[in-house]
Amino acid sequence: MSDLSRFGISIDERLLRRFDALIGKKGYVNRSEAIRDLIRGALVEEDWGDDDRETVATVTLVYDHHTRDLSDKLTEQQHSHHREIISTLHIHLDARHCLEVVVIKGQASRVKRLADELIGTKGVKHGKLVTSTTGQNLL
Amino acid sequence: MSDLSRFGISIDERLLRRFDALIGKKGYVNRSEAIRDLIRGALVEEDWGDDDRETVATVTLVYDHHTRDLSDKLTEQQHSHHREIISTLHIHLDARHCLEVVVIKGQASRVKRLADELIGTKGVKHGKLVTSTTGQNLL
Amino acid sequence: MSDLSRFGISIDERLLRRFDALIGKKGYVNRSEAIRDLIRGALVEEDWGDDDRETVATVTLVYDHHTRDLSDKLTEQQHSHHREIISTLHIHLDARHCLEVVVIKGQASRVKRLADELIGTKGVKHGKLVTSTTGQNLL
Amino acid sequence: MSDLSRFGISIDERLLRRFDALIGKKGYVNRSEAIRDLIRGALVEEDWGDDDRETVATVTLVYDHHTRDLSDKLTEQQHSHHREIISTLHIHLDARHCLEVVVIKGQASRVKRLADELIGTKGVKHGKLVTSTTGQNLL
Repeated sequence: MSDLSRFGISIDERLLRRFDALIGKKGYVNRSEAIRDLIRGALVEEDWGDDDRETVATVTLVYDHHTRDLSDKLTEQQHSHHREIISTLHIHLDARHCLEVVVIKGQASRVKRLADELIGTKGVKHGKLVTSTTGQNLL
Repeated sequence: MSDLSRFGISIDERLLRRFDALIGKKGYVNRSEAIRDLIRGALVEEDWGDDDRETVATVTLVYDHHTRDLSDKLTEQQHSHHREIISTLHIHLDARHCLEVVVIKGQASRVKRLADELIGTKGVKHGKLVTSTTGQNLL
Repeated sequence: MSDLSRFGISIDERLLRRFDALIGKKGYVNRSEAIRDLIRGALVEEDWGDDDRETVATVTLVYDHHTRDLSDKLTEQQHSHHREIISTLHIHLDARHCLEVVVIKGQASRVKRLADELIGTKGVKHGKLVTSTTGQNLL
Repeated sequence: MSDLSRFGISIDERLLRRFDALIGKKGYVNRSEAIRDLIRGALVEEDWGDDDRETVATVTLVYDHHTRDLSDKLTEQQHSHHREIISTLHIHLDARHCLEVVVIKGQASRVKRLADELIGTKGVKHGKLVTSTTGQNLL
């Protein structure tokens, strides 16, 4: 592990009060830890622009499996990318609704395209991509 | 306009270098301005989840399981909410790094608190909450 | 000793050739003897699950999602038991084949019935129930 | 797909009656389908002896995460085989008990060794390996 640096931030007092309230509520032990997390989050989003880097991502989908051909289409799309998709967790929310979490690993641009395809499938009620990294680049 | 405050944060030197490169690329004039923007973004996200409607959410976490006591802490937190947590999918990214997707169902405010607790755990490198609904409210 | 019955079964020719190779290796004198042994094994397994104690179980399924209506049937069956099924992990083995692990919690007899229904669905190539307990009864 | 063969089986009448009752209960549409499933099950088990064939397997574990060092040991074991382990589904059964399903893909002998290691870990209350195949060899 490398050395610690220290630097100062100037900030509007009211903004700081709201931030302190937020991090208190979120359970952080101090401002440094909270800000380091914000910085890591920003770096993770940025990595994402870097198109041939290996990334890992999750896609959360909610849909009604009674929608004509929808399950079949989602299954077909996922199988045609079986090398990138590590696994899919399926929760049967009720008699109709499914929550599916698809874990994808691969080149950022391909992962993004696959996520867009899944989320954009007609009938998917809610879809959200969370991009992360494979961990080695974060400190 | 209220007064300016000033506070210091400590940060790993390499993480700081990557952050400086990022804010240079994004055109920020200094670190304070970039961090104020991150803080504002976090406050906007906070707006979600102050009600008692039933929601379903996924929390994506990346962490190094060699970090002292971290796995135990995350397991303990999750078990103390075993009624809300439907299941957790764990991917072993490499010899050290874990990706974990936690699926949570319950009252929005409780789901949010649990997600904050997990993401805010010291040692978690990246964490992101995706909130959804149980489907019935989406058309 | 009771009387002998005789009945015919139809089977894919290649599957039969592999079965013949297997029973040759195992030293069976004919197919009838080998199949009688498989039947006896299935009857012994059946002994489990005639009570109403709470259990947890996993069902591992392998199937080809291109088989007509199979995915839909499995999804429908699972949703109609969404209260017992905690979650389902789906692995896309290749462009056609799926491995699915269904985690079920509930009364032993109901869990068993649901598992039988899933495994017995026409087109499922391999299915296996692992019964466990919810932990409290094991020392 | 290849041609269908047909062959006859002679069987004790009482055994046949019990088998008919069993397959009725299990929901099979006819004896042929039930017997093909028994044959496939026997072939899957046999593949398993074939040490360098690629297989896929699930290991179901139940344990108490309060057992000293147990979670850490299981996590460590799994990460040191992160190339074979596709993913792990974790269910928080109650405040203490975990059900974990580990999906493993790889050379049969290595998969078996890893499964034995996980199941044999001191403190694991129940463990069971289900071996399958990657699907291509089953008809």
